Amino acid sequence: METQKIRKLLQQVADGGVSPDEAFGRLKTLPFEDLGFAKVDHHRAMRQGFPEVIFGQGKTAAQIARIAQAIYAQGAAVLVTRVSPEKAAEVKRLMPQLAHEPEARCLSAPAKQPPPPGKGKVAVVAAGTSDLPVALEAVLTAELMGSKVERVFDVGVSGLHRLLAAADVLRSASCFVVVAGMEGALPSVVAGLVDRPVVAVPTSIGYGAAFGGLAALLGMLNSCAPGLSVVNIDNGFGGGYLAGMIDHLG
Amino acid sequence: METQKIRKLLQQVADGGVSPDEAFGRLKTLPFEDLGFAKVDHHRAMRQGFPEVIFGQGKTAAQIARIAQAIYAQGAAVLVTRVSPEKAAEVKRLMPQLAHEPEARCLSAPAKQPPPPGKGKVAVVAAGTSDLPVALEAVLTAELMGSKVERVFDVGVSGLHRLLAAADVLRSASCFVVVAGMEGALPSVVAGLVDRPVVAVPTSIGYGAAFGGLAALLGMLNSCAPGLSVVNIDNGFGGGYLAGMIDHLG
Amino acid sequence: METQKIRKLLQQVADGGVSPDEAFGRLKTLPFEDLGFAKVDHHRAMRQGFPEVIFGQGKTAAQIARIAQAIYAQGAAVLVTRVSPEKAAEVKRLMPQLAHEPEARCLSAPAKQPPPPGKGKVAVVAAGTSDLPVALEAVLTAELMGSKVERVFDVGVSGLHRLLAAADVLRSASCFVVVAGMEGALPSVVAGLVDRPVVAVPTSIGYGAAFGGLAALLGMLNSCAPGLSVVNIDNGFGGGYLAGMIDHLG
Amino acid sequence: METQKIRKLLQQVADGGVSPDEAFGRLKTLPFEDLGFAKVDHHRAMRQGFPEVIFGQGKTAAQIARIAQAIYAQGAAVLVTRVSPEKAAEVKRLMPQLAHEPEARCLSAPAKQPPPPGKGKVAVVAAGTSDLPVALEAVLTAELMGSKVERVFDVGVSGLHRLLAAADVLRSASCFVVVAGMEGALPSVVAGLVDRPVVAVPTSIGYGAAFGGLAALLGMLNSCAPGLSVVNIDNGFGGGYLAGMIDHLG
Amino acid sequence: METQKIRKLLQQVADGGVSPDEAFGRLKTLPFEDLGFAKVDHHRAMRQGFPEVIFGQGKTAAQIARIAQAIYAQGAAVLVTRVSPEKAAEVKRLMPQLAHEPEARCLSAPAKQPPPPGKGKVAVVAAGTSDLPVALEAVLTAELMGSKVERVFDVGVSGLHRLLAAADVLRSASCFVVVAGMEGALPSVVAGLVDRPVVAVPTSIGYGAAFGGLAALLGMLNSCAPGLSVVNIDNGFGGGYLAGMIDHLG
Amino acid sequence: METQKIRKLLQQVADGGVSPDEAFGRLKTLPFEDLGFAKVDHHRAMRQGFPEVIFGQGKTAAQIARIAQAIYAQGAAVLVTRVSPEKAAEVKRLMPQLAHEPEARCLSAPAKQPPPPGKGKVAVVAAGTSDLPVALEAVLTAELMGSKVERVFDVGVSGLHRLLAAADVLRSASCFVVVAGMEGALPSVVAGLVDRPVVAVPTSIGYGAAFGGLAALLGMLNSCAPGLSVVNIDNGFGGGYLAGMIDHLG
Amino acid sequence: METQKIRKLLQQVADGGVSPDEAFGRLKTLPFEDLGFAKVDHHRAMRQGFPEVIFGQGKTAAQIARIAQAIYAQGAAVLVTRVSPEKAAEVKRLMPQLAHEPEARCLSAPAKQPPPPGKGKVAVVAAGTSDLPVALEAVLTAELMGSKVERVFDVGVSGLHRLLAAADVLRSASCFVVVAGMEGALPSVVAGLVDRPVVAVPTSIGYGAAFGGLAALLGMLNSCAPGLSVVNIDNGFGGGYLAGMIDHLG
Amino acid sequence: METQKIRKLLQQVADGGVSPDEAFGRLKTLPFEDLGFAKVDHHRAMRQGFPEVIFGQGKTAAQIARIAQAIYAQGAAVLVTRVSPEKAAEVKRLMPQLAHEPEARCLSAPAKQPPPPGKGKVAVVAAGTSDLPVALEAVLTAELMGSKVERVFDVGVSGLHRLLAAADVLRSASCFVVVAGMEGALPSVVAGLVDRPVVAVPTSIGYGAAFGGLAALLGMLNSCAPGLSVVNIDNGFGGGYLAGMIDHLG
Repeated sequence: METQKIRKLLQQVADGGVSPDEAFGRLKTLPFEDLGFAKVDHHRAMRQGFPEVIFGQGKTAAQIARIAQAIYAQGAAVLVTRVSPEKAAEVKRLMPQLAHEPEARCLSAPAKQPPPPGKGKVAVVAAGTSDLPVALEAVLTAELMGSKVERVFDVGVSGLHRLLAAADVLRSASCFVVVAGMEGALPSVVAGLVDRPVVAVPTSIGYGAAFGGLAALLGMLNSCAPGLSVVNIDNGFGGGYLAGMIDHLG
Repeated sequence: METQKIRKLLQQVADGGVSPDEAFGRLKTLPFEDLGFAKVDHHRAMRQGFPEVIFGQGKTAAQIARIAQAIYAQGAAVLVTRVSPEKAAEVKRLMPQLAHEPEARCLSAPAKQPPPPGKGKVAVVAAGTSDLPVALEAVLTAELMGSKVERVFDVGVSGLHRLLAAADVLRSASCFVVVAGMEGALPSVVAGLVDRPVVAVPTSIGYGAAFGGLAALLGMLNSCAPGLSVVNIDNGFGGGYLAGMIDHLG
Repeated sequence: METQKIRKLLQQVADGGVSPDEAFGRLKTLPFEDLGFAKVDHHRAMRQGFPEVIFGQGKTAAQIARIAQAIYAQGAAVLVTRVSPEKAAEVKRLMPQLAHEPEARCLSAPAKQPPPPGKGKVAVVAAGTSDLPVALEAVLTAELMGSKVERVFDVGVSGLHRLLAAADVLRSASCFVVVAGMEGALPSVVAGLVDRPVVAVPTSIGYGAAFGGLAALLGMLNSCAPGLSVVNIDNGFGGGYLAGMIDHLG
Repeated sequence: METQKIRKLLQQVADGGVSPDEAFGRLKTLPFEDLGFAKVDHHRAMRQGFPEVIFGQGKTAAQIARIAQAIYAQGAAVLVTRVSPEKAAEVKRLMPQLAHEPEARCLSAPAKQPPPPGKGKVAVVAAGTSDLPVALEAVLTAELMGSKVERVFDVGVSGLHRLLAAADVLRSASCFVVVAGMEGALPSVVAGLVDRPVVAVPTSIGYGAAFGGLAALLGMLNSCAPGLSVVNIDNGFGGGYLAGMIDHLG
Repeated sequence: METQKIRKLLQQVADGGVSPDEAFGRLKTLPFEDLGFAKVDHHRAMRQGFPEVIFGQGKTAAQIARIAQAIYAQGAAVLVTRVSPEKAAEVKRLMPQLAHEPEARCLSAPAKQPPPPGKGKVAVVAAGTSDLPVALEAVLTAELMGSKVERVFDVGVSGLHRLLAAADVLRSASCFVVVAGMEGALPSVVAGLVDRPVVAVPTSIGYGAAFGGLAALLGMLNSCAPGLSVVNIDNGFGGGYLAGMIDHLG
Repeated sequence: METQKIRKLLQQVADGGVSPDEAFGRLKTLPFEDLGFAKVDHHRAMRQGFPEVIFGQGKTAAQIARIAQAIYAQGAAVLVTRVSPEKAAEVKRLMPQLAHEPEARCLSAPAKQPPPPGKGKVAVVAAGTSDLPVALEAVLTAELMGSKVERVFDVGVSGLHRLLAAADVLRSASCFVVVAGMEGALPSVVAGLVDRPVVAVPTSIGYGAAFGGLAALLGMLNSCAPGLSVVNIDNGFGGGYLAGMIDHLG
Repeated sequence: METQKIRKLLQQVADGGVSPDEAFGRLKTLPFEDLGFAKVDHHRAMRQGFPEVIFGQGKTAAQIARIAQAIYAQGAAVLVTRVSPEKAAEVKRLMPQLAHEPEARCLSAPAKQPPPPGKGKVAVVAAGTSDLPVALEAVLTAELMGSKVERVFDVGVSGLHRLLAAADVLRSASCFVVVAGMEGALPSVVAGLVDRPVVAVPTSIGYGAAFGGLAALLGMLNSCAPGLSVVNIDNGFGGGYLAGMIDHLG
Repeated sequence: METQKIRKLLQQVADGGVSPDEAFGRLKTLPFEDLGFAKVDHHRAMRQGFPEVIFGQGKTAAQIARIAQAIYAQGAAVLVTRVSPEKAAEVKRLMPQLAHEPEARCLSAPAKQPPPPGKGKVAVVAAGTSDLPVALEAVLTAELMGSKVERVFDVGVSGLHRLLAAADVLRSASCFVVVAGMEGALPSVVAGLVDRPVVAVPTSIGYGAAFGGLAALLGMLNSCAPGLSVVNIDNGFGGGYLAGMIDHLG
């Protein structure tokens, strides 16, 4: 129920077309988001192509397909993350409209109406080849939101010159998603070179004292480079979503 | 050595005024940032009033005053965080230009030239009164950067109606800094209501299984609300800086 | 040996039918619970249908069936938790009286005599679809105890309006079991809306910094909403049992 | 704004006394809890004497007195926890109506109207003398809510016979708050003896591998005794509140 | 009530001097330990000089003196651990019978009747001078129990030859208490050299990744030397008590 | 080289049969244990039947059989722990002298000469049926060392009366191995009832906040019952070995 | 671009063959390492046979072979770590030049030109047989770098005499890699016996409170033996590389 | 007893001057280090000026002075770390030969005979000004060992150009000690630029999720830059000692 509908309902009460009691009943079951809060804007944004994500891990192919079809039917973009090749094949059999990106471990379909383009460019930077699945999840997410995405991959801190070789991208992107496992130092280095937001995504890549991404996570949280914030370990979607959102501001 | 100096040096080589060997020697000690990378943009931003932060804890009043004066002499904004009332008084005696905000535990001075205004408005939201020092550090940081800041304080999840009463702010801000200790649920709730970036700042407020902010930190990292990212525990400066940066984009 | 038996034994000593020495020997091996302590009430409660739980994980189908039959033979309710579909099928072949609820991963049989009904209604609230197995374990437990249970599922904090749409349940239940993984914020929100006991059940749902349910657990323990307490990660039985117990008080 | 007020407002619109636009304006600023949800019941309970707690640690005496007076002015019970003797004296100078219980580290004042009595009796059980401040905080909380409270103190698991000597209390209480530090085994033992809810409160008492209450907390969460749930380390208020709430059910 | 008393009670019932009902009433309140269980032996041991420990930390001098006097009045040995020099002086003013060992941070008084001597000799081995307070607490405990104690101090693993120089002690002791902080390797080395029980006591000595004794604790628990077991961090009393107990076996 | 050999070597030097230089060369490579230290006693003990343990996990059947045969050839007892049924069958094919105890997950063979009997009796107490493999590993170890072992199984703290029913064992054993997972409270309870050494063995049984045995381990380390010490999680061998060693003292 | 190329470029500017502007453009994209920093020396070292490591875990056989061939084509040594037997066979089919060392879980090929020999000798010391894969990875790494390597295996702290029997190696090696799991005490012991660098490599061998190598890691970090430093858990390559590097110094 | 003494003893046995039995008795008490093992070399090194460290924290001024004088009397270098200004003044009053470096929190005196100079140069690199005490402890240690030390301070990863400006030092040092707190990324960056050993020293500088240096420690352990190893948090002495040792090799 929209703000207009509340006004209209009150008008109907004033007009005598609806009794006070009946109006009260309707107001009582009024879903929260219809009170005219920001949520409405959010919904508008969603309709414009921001993907609704389906976390594929731990769901069956049938469950994934059912949810994906419901989203697809509304014309919204579909994004399924963390799907194994086998599950992806099974889902695609049930819903052939989805495209499969095996390296990103994602299935996706664009929104019916293309989303408004971003204001600038999102750079997704990844430290090692093992970090690519998480990085590509971020790439795909931001692209589904309408952002242009530049990839700067395999630029770990032990080979800084490769990062510096991407100076053009560093200079021009409006927002950065920096993905790294092990000691997780790359986001700090990038944030020290640029003056735009850096979304750091720790990954579970590593062994021993990496403790499943904890070392990278702590490293990023303790970065002394301003403009840097952190999302959950392996949360490529979260990084890409925030970057896409920032890229659409203004 | 600036970009212009490199050009000039090369010109001198072309002109024969400097031998190739001598030029090589000078280039070898060339500081990195002068190669025309993004760092230059960053410096430009700094000159425009982005504050350089001095972490006051563990520094003597004399050390703080000396660094602050160096920054102030360049015309840049000064921000000193985590200063006790006693230390603040001592620093102020040495450098009376600094203003003291005891609740934020900060000393500050604006840049000589006012920074460019932000594009919108930053909302700093805090869960409890004990979270205020961290929240006010974020407020002060964003304001020094030129952003307009709205305060929405004392709106913990156990009293959601107070948050909802701030619907106007939720609807209109371009970026949110949400500060909370204990279980740290407030950023999730805010991010579920708005469609703009939420910078979550966990605080060390709490006791027992709060483990110095760990519970709040983990809660925020695991939020399923997209658009949310996290900075270090009690890092009000980091939250305010990122929000101010986002507010100046576009 | 029951209280009556002790009285009878003492009577026999008084009557000379049993010598003091022989009576002493019997008393020495007297099981603790027969001394007339609260344990007796507990046993009475058990006979009234409170389920004795069999933790199925790590037990063979044969072991499960043997224990279940022993309980069943006493007329008590049987509840087996954490059984895989394969193991459940095997147990059912050995003991066809058990019903299998695959989503709850449980096998169960009601007590011979229906348990006394609860005083009110237990509400089991779950954040996400992945939390359902734990939530359904709680539902089944409370139902076996004789409580009426309302399900409020898929009402995570990122979509609060769905929770608020269940206002009738929130208003009418006598006790709440709130199941959530990831950041575990839902129990706090529910406890802020109601004034009856909320049993929070963290789940191991999540990834990365969820650390197998630790984030949710810490979040719930640090909740500032009074009336909330916590059981072990994934302990749906524990949540349902406590709620059923509270629902039978008075 | 109460349910009746909404009805009345709608009636006024129907009567023409209030224009639809003005009614809309009032509804828009309508605090959430007034929509007739369970919160209303909660408010009613609050008016009946359930204490609103002020966490004293980290607040100044002046801040505490100001909040306490606001609550007191509404006729509600006042409870301030974690106040040192010095701070308590200072608060009492500002607000002499408060009573100080130094062992419980609390200041309190009863509600203007005595709260409705509980249905039964709350038992607060504590393992060691060092656990007493937390236990007494629980006692005071439940008493302010109108519950009758029995104290069973100094009954650690290394001296079980002292616990068993309190068999009468174990048999008759409607709800238990069991407070223990170190290995935290006492709540398990109590929950194995009774068939009513046990709220376990771990304390930070101990040293070395007690890790500030972590050992006790984990022990309680892993208890295999059903009917037991846990609140935060040292959270005597939380334990007493939940017990008082359960004691008023039915 | 002693075993004999039960027999006597039963005899009185047989004699008709006590009615069965009255006997039942007495039996119902019968403290657990009087049933003739091992506890009785334990009490006997206590009377023979095994010290009852008073953990001094967090208790006032008055509280300590009151408990100590109660124990002393029964003729038992008194041991107060973790007392600062100031508190010790205050306690001694109240109870001059106590001896103060400042290095061990203990106050003590022997049992009225000397305890039976141990069967052999307890060796207390300490790695560094900072571990001495904990080691001396163990020494004092075992001595109060009647054991002969040999001290082997300052023999850390970085100077193994000093340990080997104590070969006579290693060869002749019946039980070892080995106290070490930092990496906690000493107990492993000792247990590899001897074939009698080694009680390992980790200490909180160290810094950084010692994490308050956690490193030493984990090292000792993971020792591959059989015959080694571990007590809590800094628990010199626990180590000395167990060693004294073993030394009295047989 | 044995003590006798050194004496003999020195005699040969005295006799002129061996030159001082040659003797020096032999002494320089002299293994440490031959210097007559306590190690020799340990070796003697080993020859008397104390088992040398082979940790089977992570070793191939061939490796296990090879090591086992080397020990067996010396006439010593053989104990292989943590072997799966499949691996056990394979090892037995290679070395049929080994007996397989599937519940204990062990293979074993007694020493050629029966070890000297223990002085008393070891009691192995286990909380739940899932703890049996660890408990049986302790039983087997102590029996191979020549100790008489009593089993007290399935006596968790939620059913204390079953423990108390074993009063005879509690009264008569010279040493206790108490095995428990989850909250690990059982060793505390046993140590509160007896006055002989209790070796606590935490197990990894449990889920959620059991954290693989950490909760049980911390609980046991924090026990306030004196005479209790702890070995590594699931270390049944370590518990049985220490108990057997204590049982042979005196 | 090499140092020579910069000199040449500058010469061309001096010669007029390249304009200053064009030279500036080329310099701007100049990779970092070409500025004549230490990196160049590093590259020289690499060409001399220092292995470039390929972490095999999580890479497909095809990916491994492709990277290995690229390194091999440059004449450098190839080292692939953490490859299962199956994957190793597959890689060897694609690239038969690689040698497989199954115990070390490595594939390798020497550099085309043999690396310069080390100055002394590297000793790789391992505590238990389960630590061998990590130790052998260190051996292979140092050997590929041209160092002579001595193996001292199976010398855990519970059998120190075996370590002491290797006195010749302890006396003569220039650097030590000491590999140990469980309590990780061996590096401390070795560092107490020698006065040359000891690189400690904790392994994930152990169970229970070993916590995947954490206990060994903490033990090594807390060693009081100077000259000892630590690399990541199971990082045999890191240990061998550092030792080989030290062995080539001077 | 030295190697020569053993030879002499054996000669005396051969000569008949000492009986075999008496010789055996002397050999049995033979301290380990006298067997001619590497320990002797270590002692030689110590006499050559390697400092023996006294950890000052937790020791009284009198204890420090007594140990320092014993070392000084042998002509060895003295180094006392972690001394507060007050304690340093007190120690100096007792032993005026010691020099006080307040920034390094150290007291020291050189060896009577200057130690042999290092082969090259040690570089001590520190990230922030707060890391200076730890870095200066490393500087002082290496200097006392005779190494030439270069300081490269205040070169955190957020200002890489300052590090690169120290290219000469990076190119010429034989070993690096790199000190950093917070995210601890600096050692990785340095190790990526040089091909000589890097000893990483994490510091406890930071707040929140720095967890007392844990974040820096984990970051350094997970570095993918080879040639890097780690010592304990804040262990400047350990870093300087290892670097000095490496600098003296060859």
